[in-house]
Amino acid sequence: MSPDESRQITIFDTTLRDGEQSPGCSMNLDEKLEVAQALADLGVNVIEAGFPITSPGDFEAVREISRTVSGATICGLARCHERDIDRAWEALRDGNDVRIHVFLATSAIHREFKLKMDKEEIIRRAVEGVTRAKAYCDNIEFSPEDAARTEIDFLCQVVESAISAGATTVNIPDTVGYATPAHFANVISSLVNRVPNIDQAVISVHCHNDLGLAVANSLAAVENGAGQIECTINGLGERAGNCSLEEVVMALRTRGDYYGADTRINTPRLVPTSRLVSNITGMVVQRNKAIVGRNAFAHEAGIHQDGMLKERTTYEIMRPEDVGFTHTDLVLGKHSGRAALADRAKALGYHLSEDQLVVVFEDFKALADKKKEVYDGDIAALIEQRKSQIVDQWQLISYQVQATSGQAPSVTVTLQRGDKEASKKIDAGDGPLDALFRAIEEITARSVVVRDFRVQSATRGKDAQGESIVEVEYNGKTYRGRGVSTDTVEAGTRAFLNAINHIEIGAAEQSQQEPTV
Amino acid sequence: MSPDESRQITIFDTTLRDGEQSPGCSMNLDEKLEVAQALADLGVNVIEAGFPITSPGDFEAVREISRTVSGATICGLARCHERDIDRAWEALRDGNDVRIHVFLATSAIHREFKLKMDKEEIIRRAVEGVTRAKAYCDNIEFSPEDAARTEIDFLCQVVESAISAGATTVNIPDTVGYATPAHFANVISSLVNRVPNIDQAVISVHCHNDLGLAVANSLAAVENGAGQIECTINGLGERAGNCSLEEVVMALRTRGDYYGADTRINTPRLVPTSRLVSNITGMVVQRNKAIVGRNAFAHEAGIHQDGMLKERTTYEIMRPEDVGFTHTDLVLGKHSGRAALADRAKALGYHLSEDQLVVVFEDFKALADKKKEVYDGDIAALIEQRKSQIVDQWQLISYQVQATSGQAPSVTVTLQRGDKEASKKIDAGDGPLDALFRAIEEITARSVVVRDFRVQSATRGKDAQGESIVEVEYNGKTYRGRGVSTDTVEAGTRAFLNAINHIEIGAAEQSQQEPTV
Repeated sequence: MSPDESRQITIFDTTLRDGEQSPGCSMNLDEKLEVAQALADLGVNVIEAGFPITSPGDFEAVREISRTVSGATICGLARCHERDIDRAWEALRDGNDVRIHVFLATSAIHREFKLKMDKEEIIRRAVEGVTRAKAYCDNIEFSPEDAARTEIDFLCQVVESAISAGATTVNIPDTVGYATPAHFANVISSLVNRVPNIDQAVISVHCHNDLGLAVANSLAAVENGAGQIECTINGLGERAGNCSLEEVVMALRTRGDYYGADTRINTPRLVPTSRLVSNITGMVVQRNKAIVGRNAFAHEAGIHQDGMLKERTTYEIMRPEDVGFTHTDLVLGKHSGRAALADRAKALGYHLSEDQLVVVFEDFKALADKKKEVYDGDIAALIEQRKSQIVDQWQLISYQVQATSGQAPSVTVTLQRGDKEASKKIDAGDGPLDALFRAIEEITARSVVVRDFRVQSATRGKDAQGESIVEVEYNGKTYRGRGVSTDTVEAGTRAFLNAINHIEIGAAEQSQQEPTV
Repeated sequence: MSPDESRQITIFDTTLRDGEQSPGCSMNLDEKLEVAQALADLGVNVIEAGFPITSPGDFEAVREISRTVSGATICGLARCHERDIDRAWEALRDGNDVRIHVFLATSAIHREFKLKMDKEEIIRRAVEGVTRAKAYCDNIEFSPEDAARTEIDFLCQVVESAISAGATTVNIPDTVGYATPAHFANVISSLVNRVPNIDQAVISVHCHNDLGLAVANSLAAVENGAGQIECTINGLGERAGNCSLEEVVMALRTRGDYYGADTRINTPRLVPTSRLVSNITGMVVQRNKAIVGRNAFAHEAGIHQDGMLKERTTYEIMRPEDVGFTHTDLVLGKHSGRAALADRAKALGYHLSEDQLVVVFEDFKALADKKKEVYDGDIAALIEQRKSQIVDQWQLISYQVQATSGQAPSVTVTLQRGDKEASKKIDAGDGPLDALFRAIEEITARSVVVRDFRVQSATRGKDAQGESIVEVEYNGKTYRGRGVSTDTVEAGTRAFLNAINHIEIGAAEQSQQEPTV
């Protein structure tokens, strides 16, 4: 089937809502704006930007994204409560192209244990919610939460009522990741066949990956009439996450002959967008992840390599360049100018203001002095570090280390805050890094527990920059810090200090109170 | 459906063959034996232990595993060549319960470009291969490589001929990960309906995950009559990997009501086995990986947590303990004895000899002196470090570091080899670790390129051990090293030295010449 004849499937990305509510994935406002812009560049149709009632951070994100990001519909989530819907509209109303998404659980187990409502009340509340949202906005999505475990007769009733009340998209979530492809296909075809007004709305699906079936369930739904898929970059999301955007999009593109459906996704942006989200959230993409993992196109076996040389299609169903892997990193060096840097940053998915570009260019020049070749990974790391810096908090001025294996190290750290400097010498600790962390804790008077500490090379080669991510616990909340340096010890120290700075400004990683679906 | 009425599906694990042939996953003999034993403990029915013709390492692994591991059928892979099959039998013949697995590509694209054979010749060669293998062994599996892209009429012919020649299992590989669930279901049901002697063999499937559909395709095959699933721990394997064992097993177990099929897998061993394979291969499991990822059972959203408190099944379809997550790590301390350590090691999937236990217990005591609480992660890290040490090569005696941020550091490293000691002082480098690596390169006279460098905490808490993995390139080959210490700098130094030691003994990471399927 030629692309012209393909049915167009709407891609609804919920990285900023369902993805962001998974442990360790919280983002601040700037990070959310960066991701939203990258999603628009990728060609996503709808961006679910947050759940405004749950926190001021979610509210701000939805408001700023709906005001500034163009090219995609911006969506905010709300329960079927008046105050949720009003708050969602407050966040969205300045946008040009917006959607309110209301949800209410419908399965027997949720009705009985969570909501303590009977079927009639569920329908009444759903209709009230959709009606209230519709008064604000034409574009309304309704989700019966845990739809995959809802009795099919009742599900048909709820969906019909929601459409009558004005829902333009009805989304069928497999909230707990329990569906199988054949079962889910059956749910969707039942809705198509039995809901009399179904032609007045788009059927959407929202699948979780607890049994590894989110992509397959979404595709089974498309085969049976669904017109929208909800998904996330790298499959982020609650527990095992959501349907992975890159997988479902490439399955439709690669097997267009079979599905007769396609999306408007600009697939060479998949790998850069995946890396951007991984860099920002600190969530590692495993090497053997489909489409965007480092090994996804690596043909290791001799027989495969031999076959590939004779004819690529013997072992290759997609070309790496189609999803955005480039054969060689474009390398910059000390003679590269600001325009070249701006170019690479854009290709990597970053939108730098003029001011940001000036600062990052200084960092780049300093790095290019130390390192002959500056790779994409180096540039991404520099930008991420700059973006995670927080003005007027603690800055690292210098460190000194004296250490001999098996003995207590001796370190001195000097920090600056505003125009004040403070130094601390520590003669204890398990090695230099532990001692440096202790010195920072003493100066800043913040005592934390390190939950996770990583340093990894941002690029290949002996002079690669070390990129460090630290997660610390403070007063029961988790804070993340990031640091980059060609000196691994300095990278770790900067990351630890960055986490402390996040504590200072109260930017807890996991601040949501009531997300869902 | 009660478990008694469930059809039993054979689980064929190919972590040691298809998994091991993916970049960065090579294992040495001891590591393969460790994984094979863990797979037997997990309840896997068949272990594909290697491809004996491809390298002496593969040959040795298949021979040792078939001699020493009981409770599972041990399988060796061979092309339809006399010398491949003879070599496979040589490796397997001392085992009690063994299988020869022969394969030959059948799709038009492979016939034309790779093999340059017509259909008649393919059938003749397949029959010759199966016949030769059958002369050695009753238990024969035949795979038509790229079956999912093979014309269905021809596939039926090949399968019928292979069964007539004596194949007891016919495996249908989706070699390039191109199939969709409905298409693959159709292939399997065609074989069931059209191959007259199909009742004389078990139908197996081997799915790759390029489009994220390996688990769904395998389940679709089971629904249509397949009796064996080929899969790997953590979904390792060529490119995006194979069907993930833990996902397909838990889908069958959790949705037994739907599939009417089950396996004999001891599911509480899934998480320990996943961690063992991740520790040994250095392949990180992403947090949002289904079943075994760190977030797989993490309920973050407030609504979810509220629902879980009221009734677990509102948001939970599996219990974490069913797949081997324990609520609290069992903690050991300085007063724990050797029996307690042996117990934890066993629970973590390690089989320590008496001699190994003595050495690891010494390490444990040293660690318990520094750290009040010793967690499972600490113990796994200690064991992995011991196992990766190589006798009579370079050992780290001591290091000294003096460093000030922004200036060249000064370091001294002392190594020992046999009864000789060597020291080197270096006053250059990007920070202490870079300088330490340079000093080691000078002493050992091995100049390498660092491809990947990671340090991460093995467990939670400020006094967690740092576990470092280094990948270096030397003469075009990749070598991996591992190091553990409560001192992060020492962990990195040990890992780098361990990689150098692997070069010394010529243990290249990627030594295979011709693997496949």
